[in-house]
Amino acid sequence: MLQVSIKPGREKRIRGFHPWVYKNDILSFSRRPKPGELCIVRDHRGSFLAKGYINPDSYIAIRILTFKKDEEIDYQFFVKRIEEALSYRKELVPENCTAFRLIHSEADYLPGLIADYYDGYLVIQVTTLGMEILKETVVRALVEVVKPKGIYEKSTVQTRELEGLPLIEQPLYGDVPERVVILENGIKFNVQIVGGQKTGYFLDQRENKLLFAKEFVKEGDRVLDAFCHLGGFGIHAAVIGKAKEVVALDSSQLALDLAKENAQLNGVADRFTFVKGDAFKVLKKMSQEGEKFDSIVIDPPAFAKSKTVVQQAKRGYKEFFLRGLKMLKPGGRIVVCSCSHHITPPMLEEILISAAYDTRTPLRVLYTTYQAKDHPFVLQIPESRYLKCIFARRFEWEV
Amino acid sequence: MLQVSIKPGREKRIRGFHPWVYKNDILSFSRRPKPGELCIVRDHRGSFLAKGYINPDSYIAIRILTFKKDEEIDYQFFVKRIEEALSYRKELVPENCTAFRLIHSEADYLPGLIADYYDGYLVIQVTTLGMEILKETVVRALVEVVKPKGIYEKSTVQTRELEGLPLIEQPLYGDVPERVVILENGIKFNVQIVGGQKTGYFLDQRENKLLFAKEFVKEGDRVLDAFCHLGGFGIHAAVIGKAKEVVALDSSQLALDLAKENAQLNGVADRFTFVKGDAFKVLKKMSQEGEKFDSIVIDPPAFAKSKTVVQQAKRGYKEFFLRGLKMLKPGGRIVVCSCSHHITPPMLEEILISAAYDTRTPLRVLYTTYQAKDHPFVLQIPESRYLKCIFARRFEWEV
Repeated sequence: MLQVSIKPGREKRIRGFHPWVYKNDILSFSRRPKPGELCIVRDHRGSFLAKGYINPDSYIAIRILTFKKDEEIDYQFFVKRIEEALSYRKELVPENCTAFRLIHSEADYLPGLIADYYDGYLVIQVTTLGMEILKETVVRALVEVVKPKGIYEKSTVQTRELEGLPLIEQPLYGDVPERVVILENGIKFNVQIVGGQKTGYFLDQRENKLLFAKEFVKEGDRVLDAFCHLGGFGIHAAVIGKAKEVVALDSSQLALDLAKENAQLNGVADRFTFVKGDAFKVLKKMSQEGEKFDSIVIDPPAFAKSKTVVQQAKRGYKEFFLRGLKMLKPGGRIVVCSCSHHITPPMLEEILISAAYDTRTPLRVLYTTYQAKDHPFVLQIPESRYLKCIFARRFEWEV
Repeated sequence: MLQVSIKPGREKRIRGFHPWVYKNDILSFSRRPKPGELCIVRDHRGSFLAKGYINPDSYIAIRILTFKKDEEIDYQFFVKRIEEALSYRKELVPENCTAFRLIHSEADYLPGLIADYYDGYLVIQVTTLGMEILKETVVRALVEVVKPKGIYEKSTVQTRELEGLPLIEQPLYGDVPERVVILENGIKFNVQIVGGQKTGYFLDQRENKLLFAKEFVKEGDRVLDAFCHLGGFGIHAAVIGKAKEVVALDSSQLALDLAKENAQLNGVADRFTFVKGDAFKVLKKMSQEGEKFDSIVIDPPAFAKSKTVVQQAKRGYKEFFLRGLKMLKPGGRIVVCSCSHHITPPMLEEILISAAYDTRTPLRVLYTTYQAKDHPFVLQIPESRYLKCIFARRFEWEV
């Protein structure tokens, strides 16, 4: 197997279970590496560190699969990794949820692989060349451990092209329906398996939606779901929180149509007002018209996709939060989210503080949370925390 | 009333509801201030900002009570503030908890006042001269709103001396027993009202103890409570988590005696092993002897009481976390806490990462939490967040 030595000092991160070797960590190769092949990583003295796969031209040159010297990267390896991932999910995903993320790439030490479980079916995404080469073995292991009715591949992320891979969508095993209906906290949602965005649904707000609906929405509330997408937060607010009225915004008509379908599926469509438009403009107009809400959720799409746009993204988030706070009634509750890894927890807090200062809204913070636990945040991999939410409540008194 | 002008630019924080005016924020006084008297704070142009009380020699010279121009600081003011605080607690404190913090000083915009509710009785703490002067009015308002059976003052914090106040402990209203038994998450705890530490008990870990017992302890587990104090985490683990064995450490024999009494009160004393000793030494010895635990909590006392000792405190925390991680079984769960405001959430994370790197313990982070919500974390007052906990779980695989 290809042997890769890394520079002195760079082994510390690897020994601490961070799964990446950067291109400029590499000292030497035992021979010319083939893109995507398995390799052994050693420190500059030759001591074993890890096994992974390499793409020598990538910024992240090696992604690690195991830190165990005697572990072969074979069918049994994947069976074990998937078993551990599944047993972790079985413990933490409640029974009234029939969908969850089974494999979350590096955060399950299976870099380049995403697998979502939708009521008996698996949708997988392969994002790297190294994992592409291992795909057949992985799929066999998934069948063995999970025993799904079908597996569908939806490897349609643009980053595949950086790895020299085509975008591809195809059935891999069994029968796969175009759509399934899943339960998320007991609420029905349509999942578009064939076509549609990402792997069909966004599972990472599951726990936050439940917390929002249970603790941040009261019977009879007027709720704003500022980036409603498929309607997740708003429908939770209506069904579990018993909100009287939900105003749900999105810039995409397709998203609004799907959200409406989901609301209908749960018999709460009559409580929804759907508004299509650019959030900057719509929120500004609504706040100027004096609209008020008991409970607000602001979950914008990732607009800080790289470090360089962080300043700009901060201004964007602040603008949204300002508008939300202006429409929040005294005693009202607000959840603000950011799904960009580059917006750190202290940054999100700072943006909200700044918006709260400017709008003179005194807030108590009740919870700060991350993505749902089936999208693990591994302590040693700071990059694995991407979604952050602050749950805050306005004081009753006004100035 | 005394008028205080503050320097240009310093008004921003006040307008944003931060309740402190520092000595060096002050531009001028309308007359010579009397220590502890009420005052009006204005910006350098004379615009109203807030009302509070002053202690001109303190680093924090003015503590703000209201940002409302037309609000008088009188009996009615305190009635309203206490009503708001009580209504917030009534919503968030579950029925199986008969004790909670009613007033948390600045975080309830009543600086210098702490009030804890213990099953019908109030224990208050007055920490500033300004609040001392208002005490009689405050006590009347507490009687009106809360209708307690008795109020006991336990103003025994050293910082009172900085304000020129004596340490004092006395009954203020009604009858107060020396001890009461409270329910915390349905579990019985003795609270020493007369004598004893602080206001008698530590209520700020209530939610974390419940989360620990419900999600981090499984039936039959062996649990380590590394700074057990009155036994809170350990007894929760035994009663709610059904732990088979709890090893509870503390350096104080008095604490261990009280913890034992509490364990007996709940019929779980036979599952406890109490160990007296210095945590550095005991944890080192235990880990060297190969002790292993399914679930561990490390909640050290505040040893970063000022900014200057942060580096030293970090080393202390890391040492504790290292020892804990070495004794954590694969798949095991650990909670680490810091109650020092100067240890920020990113710092605590960094300390745990460093300990996890050194012990080669891969960890998933399941929750990060703060003090219980009846000790509010006000977004605009960063100082109001002091307790931080990380709930993490070790991966099943070992290297």
